[in-house]
Amino acid sequence: MNTAETAPQAPTDSADTMETPTGGRTVDWENPRVAAILMAAAKCFARKGFSATTLAEIGKELGLRKSIVHYYFASKAALIHEVQSFTYRKYLEQVRESIASGAEGGAQAALQSLWDAMQSSKTATGLNIEVWSAARRDDELKRRAAELQQDAQKLIGEAVSGALGIDQQRFTRLDQLSRLLLAVVNGLSVSESLDGDEVKAKQTYDLFLEILRSGIESVK
Amino acid sequence: MNTAETAPQAPTDSADTMETPTGGRTVDWENPRVAAILMAAAKCFARKGFSATTLAEIGKELGLRKSIVHYYFASKAALIHEVQSFTYRKYLEQVRESIASGAEGGAQAALQSLWDAMQSSKTATGLNIEVWSAARRDDELKRRAAELQQDAQKLIGEAVSGALGIDQQRFTRLDQLSRLLLAVVNGLSVSESLDGDEVKAKQTYDLFLEILRSGIESVK
Repeated sequence: MNTAETAPQAPTDSADTMETPTGGRTVDWENPRVAAILMAAAKCFARKGFSATTLAEIGKELGLRKSIVHYYFASKAALIHEVQSFTYRKYLEQVRESIASGAEGGAQAALQSLWDAMQSSKTATGLNIEVWSAARRDDELKRRAAELQQDAQKLIGEAVSGALGIDQQRFTRLDQLSRLLLAVVNGLSVSESLDGDEVKAKQTYDLFLEILRSGIESVK
Repeated sequence: MNTAETAPQAPTDSADTMETPTGGRTVDWENPRVAAILMAAAKCFARKGFSATTLAEIGKELGLRKSIVHYYFASKAALIHEVQSFTYRKYLEQVRESIASGAEGGAQAALQSLWDAMQSSKTATGLNIEVWSAARRDDELKRRAAELQQDAQKLIGEAVSGALGIDQQRFTRLDQLSRLLLAVVNGLSVSESLDGDEVKAKQTYDLFLEILRSGIESVK
């Protein structure tokens, strides 16, 4: 075997992009090869689950040898943790953009955008379900998932305040309201994944928004 | 090895209980040994997940040899399918009872009972999360899960109609409303499993009920 042929890029290849906005990480999301591995891994994990997916399969998706995947990620566990953070951060960015563009079309559109973002990223929602299961036995995954959940709730809290005309200074239950919205989106993605009924899922979300708009007045 | 010692009970041992209310099943839930295996399996699966749990471990929980577990369940897949149906049916029975006794204490209590049932059966909610993940790659598990979801929604629909004074003949969106309630309970069980915050989960459910009670008037 010619090991020189499979030698991965030296980390210095991407030294100019090592400073990423999130900082502090040892994995460089800005490195195109790292990002490609993370995206391929997200697809494989969402399709087959964590335990049935091997590093070799992930490499194969990109025409890379397992040793190269190993160069960037010391273990499958490390890759799983990073894939979850990477995919969820990208998903939240998409939600943020979707909300921002929705906000131009009226405050109500922001709540609709939350749904659209969920529907448009089936890999992210599929991966989410895998994470909920695996996090029950992996403390680091759980810690990261809880942190990402916090970030998602914060983002949702801002969107929902604007959309429902909530005064963030006075309303003391924004935390619960954001948790509720995230729970509805997550819970509906579960029922949709079981019966595949996208239409009913959407109708249910719409019913929720109607109830929310009218019912929120009594708790504001 | 003395195989005679490990010979499982002949199925005729429980011939008098072979006719179970659900009918048509080949696995006899009324057989005490079958029920014990299913309960032990539910605990093991909820703790370690499906792929990391062996039939031998499940037998060990009960002091039974793997061969006996195998006598009743031809494969781990068959056991997983049956555990999911068995546990969820028992859980739904509990919800039904809880709602019935809650209803005596006023209609609103029925909605509270839904929450209490979920909180009281951590094995069922843990197993649920495992099922959502595994069902993505197991069509039979998915089919059963979708069917159980239907049953749960039906049960919730009846409870919620009573609690919110909904006329089932006139209200055309009961299906969506039930789906929404199940999604909220499932979604909140996910966020609670990630951050372990039972108090916030409960506060969020209470906020949902407040919004629902007030907001439902506008869509009835």
